Amino acid sequence: MKIAFFGDVVGRSGRDAVKRHLPGLKGRLGLDAVIINAENAAGGFGITRATAEELFDAGADVLTLGNHTFDQAQGISVIDNDPRIIRPCNYPKGTTPGRGAGLFDVNGFQLLVINVLGNVFMDTLDNPFHAVEAELDAAPLGSVADFVLVDVHAEATSEKNGMGYFCDGRASLVVGTHSHVPTGDARILPNGTAYQTDAGMCGDYDSIIGMETEEPLRRFTTKMRGGRFTTASGPGTLCGVYVETGANGLATRIEPIRMGGQLAETVPTPQ
Amino acid sequence: MKIAFFGDVVGRSGRDAVKRHLPGLKGRLGLDAVIINAENAAGGFGITRATAEELFDAGADVLTLGNHTFDQAQGISVIDNDPRIIRPCNYPKGTTPGRGAGLFDVNGFQLLVINVLGNVFMDTLDNPFHAVEAELDAAPLGSVADFVLVDVHAEATSEKNGMGYFCDGRASLVVGTHSHVPTGDARILPNGTAYQTDAGMCGDYDSIIGMETEEPLRRFTTKMRGGRFTTASGPGTLCGVYVETGANGLATRIEPIRMGGQLAETVPTPQ
Amino acid sequence: MKIAFFGDVVGRSGRDAVKRHLPGLKGRLGLDAVIINAENAAGGFGITRATAEELFDAGADVLTLGNHTFDQAQGISVIDNDPRIIRPCNYPKGTTPGRGAGLFDVNGFQLLVINVLGNVFMDTLDNPFHAVEAELDAAPLGSVADFVLVDVHAEATSEKNGMGYFCDGRASLVVGTHSHVPTGDARILPNGTAYQTDAGMCGDYDSIIGMETEEPLRRFTTKMRGGRFTTASGPGTLCGVYVETGANGLATRIEPIRMGGQLAETVPTPQ
Amino acid sequence: MKIAFFGDVVGRSGRDAVKRHLPGLKGRLGLDAVIINAENAAGGFGITRATAEELFDAGADVLTLGNHTFDQAQGISVIDNDPRIIRPCNYPKGTTPGRGAGLFDVNGFQLLVINVLGNVFMDTLDNPFHAVEAELDAAPLGSVADFVLVDVHAEATSEKNGMGYFCDGRASLVVGTHSHVPTGDARILPNGTAYQTDAGMCGDYDSIIGMETEEPLRRFTTKMRGGRFTTASGPGTLCGVYVETGANGLATRIEPIRMGGQLAETVPTPQ
Ligand SMILES: [Fe+2]
Ligand SMILES: [Fe+2]
Ligand SMILES: [Fe+2]
Ligand SMILES: [Fe+2]
Ligand SMILES: [Fe+2]
Ligand SMILES: [Fe+2]
Ligand SMILES: [Fe+2]
Ligand SMILES: [Fe+2]
Repeated sequence: MKIAFFGDVVGRSGRDAVKRHLPGLKGRLGLDAVIINAENAAGGFGITRATAEELFDAGADVLTLGNHTFDQAQGISVIDNDPRIIRPCNYPKGTTPGRGAGLFDVNGFQLLVINVLGNVFMDTLDNPFHAVEAELDAAPLGSVADFVLVDVHAEATSEKNGMGYFCDGRASLVVGTHSHVPTGDARILPNGTAYQTDAGMCGDYDSIIGMETEEPLRRFTTKMRGGRFTTASGPGTLCGVYVETGANGLATRIEPIRMGGQLAETVPTPQ
Repeated sequence: MKIAFFGDVVGRSGRDAVKRHLPGLKGRLGLDAVIINAENAAGGFGITRATAEELFDAGADVLTLGNHTFDQAQGISVIDNDPRIIRPCNYPKGTTPGRGAGLFDVNGFQLLVINVLGNVFMDTLDNPFHAVEAELDAAPLGSVADFVLVDVHAEATSEKNGMGYFCDGRASLVVGTHSHVPTGDARILPNGTAYQTDAGMCGDYDSIIGMETEEPLRRFTTKMRGGRFTTASGPGTLCGVYVETGANGLATRIEPIRMGGQLAETVPTPQ
Repeated sequence: MKIAFFGDVVGRSGRDAVKRHLPGLKGRLGLDAVIINAENAAGGFGITRATAEELFDAGADVLTLGNHTFDQAQGISVIDNDPRIIRPCNYPKGTTPGRGAGLFDVNGFQLLVINVLGNVFMDTLDNPFHAVEAELDAAPLGSVADFVLVDVHAEATSEKNGMGYFCDGRASLVVGTHSHVPTGDARILPNGTAYQTDAGMCGDYDSIIGMETEEPLRRFTTKMRGGRFTTASGPGTLCGVYVETGANGLATRIEPIRMGGQLAETVPTPQ
Repeated sequence: MKIAFFGDVVGRSGRDAVKRHLPGLKGRLGLDAVIINAENAAGGFGITRATAEELFDAGADVLTLGNHTFDQAQGISVIDNDPRIIRPCNYPKGTTPGRGAGLFDVNGFQLLVINVLGNVFMDTLDNPFHAVEAELDAAPLGSVADFVLVDVHAEATSEKNGMGYFCDGRASLVVGTHSHVPTGDARILPNGTAYQTDAGMCGDYDSIIGMETEEPLRRFTTKMRGGRFTTASGPGTLCGVYVETGANGLATRIEPIRMGGQLAETVPTPQ
């Protein structure tokens, strides 16, 4: 399979970057599926029906989320009703709207998408390793699923590295989100799982993690608030990873994708 | 000027990567100076006389540190006595061994190196922005210093992004360390400062941030300790950034460097 | 001198408890001065001109603050203009409205009031120990000041204990705030400083630290927000400490004060 | 029933305070059961066979623990083998030695003891509210259990308050530990559960939470380590709460206990 995953879409710049670059890329790379983390799609905080639709229309098959999952009151029913939207699987059982994983039929393949929130330096949901293990067991790679993607939305690189090794051989791709900065460590782990610590954000990199610099700099230097954070509005970068898998669902190739905006462009060569 | 900076050297694998790749690279790129973050050089925790010497012998002009600065009791006098070793500048004034910044004469250039520890999700030293500002003011770029390097040793990408913009136009390079993962966001900020959120570690990437995977995975899954962390001993990657500056000390080029080990290689082309 | 200090006034219940109990108590105990932490006086978040006036009218001589100092936009000018209102002294120098300490002439005595924010588990201001030391040095107990009060607004009991010993012999009273729960450890430290880890809040204890229980319980159990926090509105408790000092400004007596509301009453006996 | 609970026993001073004061107190108050938090009994860190036996010999029926549960390697088998020792119930299922709750027959009564670790500002175990709920459901107060005690070992007062209200009417006593400072907020919640935010430590209060002051003060002021923490060795205080319940297992009385050492003594009057 050929899959692309893109990191946290931040506001209009992020959505525009997806709309501008994804449709052509999808054809050129012959992608079987596209998954996008949309936790910051709506003005930087959460998701709405309209922002989700923009991303689906641009070519996303599945959307994942993160610590901003429920920031938009109107987004809660969207998450609860649309099976293509996946929120972290380690939210409490029984009370949380939506689903923490989903098995999708795309292009005749069975794609399992798991989203999980890290515990280190974040609000503490259930143990992310145990939660992911339960989802991996429910639809094993190679028997039930043709591709297993784990979006580990976490702060600490140690926890993301850990999730990679924890899933190694059981997932096709473990990719981090949340830091809003792409990492340059794409590789295939010893047992065949493609891994990159962070996909990076889709958004305007002339910013502080997608936000206009003025207010964050004020807070860092004066420790006082001057107003709200506002998303930066310059040209956005489409930022993510491209993965190919073999017959067993394990990875044969992983490469970063960065198109447009402030970052040096890198696009996989179709082979 | 032509400068290379390399991120957190982790144990023997990291030191070996530096020794294997740096000497040749230095000649090929015509580097005027080399700066290396050595906070994990001694078995993953801190620095010793011997490990510092290995890095100087391999071509380092200046070493920087981080939150592991004083982990090795015997390293404290080394840091205090060797002016080529710079520890974070926001440790308390008056009681802290060593220096938080240094102005070095290298190849006839004046090189200012500043090291600072972030406050977010870390032990809290003095305000990192105020501390860096004082150092920038003491040896301004363009008048006193030909090159100003800020190594921002921090956890949160927001704080590192923030330091980049805070120094934009006043530093030649702001580069992050501490996450042990290189970021793919090298760029020149609007006012001429080269920036990359993290240089990545020099060490074995078949690991959890440089450590054997077994113990961290045990702690993540069982919440119990089974022993100490031990540095991974496979082939290391030399990981960092290359920067060129013009007559005013601002950047004209920044590119990542990754050589050897588990990561896809990328080396700047001499021009 | 005879001094009373009361902890975080939370909303109307807290202000009402002060108004109901303080005026009589002041006379009965023959208090020379009353200091109140008012960081939650305005609806639980920050201070306004009106809420400050209520507390001054009820008998407060000086108000202190904490991490909620600047929550109310309209409170900022109040803090900046009224010298009887003291905010944490370890906010950044040069940019922060208001004062971190004040020397007050009350009943012919010189009263030094210092407010400081802890660093552990809190937003990180400047080192609280260094900041307090500077204030202690500026108006030493026994020569310049007749009474030195340090309100250490902090989360961790270790940091509050630490501030007590750090100031022991140099302050008349070190008292904690922020936890909204009174501690039962009032004592005089070896060198003469009266100490209690937390003064407790003035407010309705049938609550979660002063707030209606429903929303905090929802967040603890579901990890989702259902709305804002609202202050509990039942009968409040006046909660604080009473301290007597000798000629040298060191303490000869410290006792807790708890009047009204949900907690068992304890009031010092006039001697 | 008549029950006493004592907070974190810290080292020898804490154990000595228990041995000196508990036996007499047990007789005077006619206690049916004594429960002690022993997480710091062995030199400040964890528990050993010998330190556990000292506390059982002095009159403890059950010991609870906390974040230091597994600090002593030799303590792990003790915890696993002795059913009278209870560790936090929200450690991972399946891999953790020992038990998170226990139903004990004491003096002909069924006593349920639950220990749980908070999530806020601590290493993150499973959701403490969900874990406690499962234990409460397994042995309900009034039908299976005559007395239900919840030791909530947590940092944040909000989380401890929250656990009190969460269990109100379902537990006889919710009492906090971990802060090493007794709180002065003992009360009976609206539905009949006795509550105190922290029992306080059994140990030497002329200290920083039970440790000699020198090393913690060095770290607070210099941000450098000078050595290990050592337990303070002055006279200890026995510190805890006394609770009486009626026929339905709900509380009719709660009072603090503080005997010996640095704190003002308070002992319940037998009635
Ligand atoms: Fe995000
Ligand atoms: Fe996020
Ligand atoms: Fe490091
Ligand atoms: Fe570090
Ligand atoms: Fe407060
Ligand atoms: Fe506060
Ligand atoms: Fe403890
Ligand atoms: Fe503890």
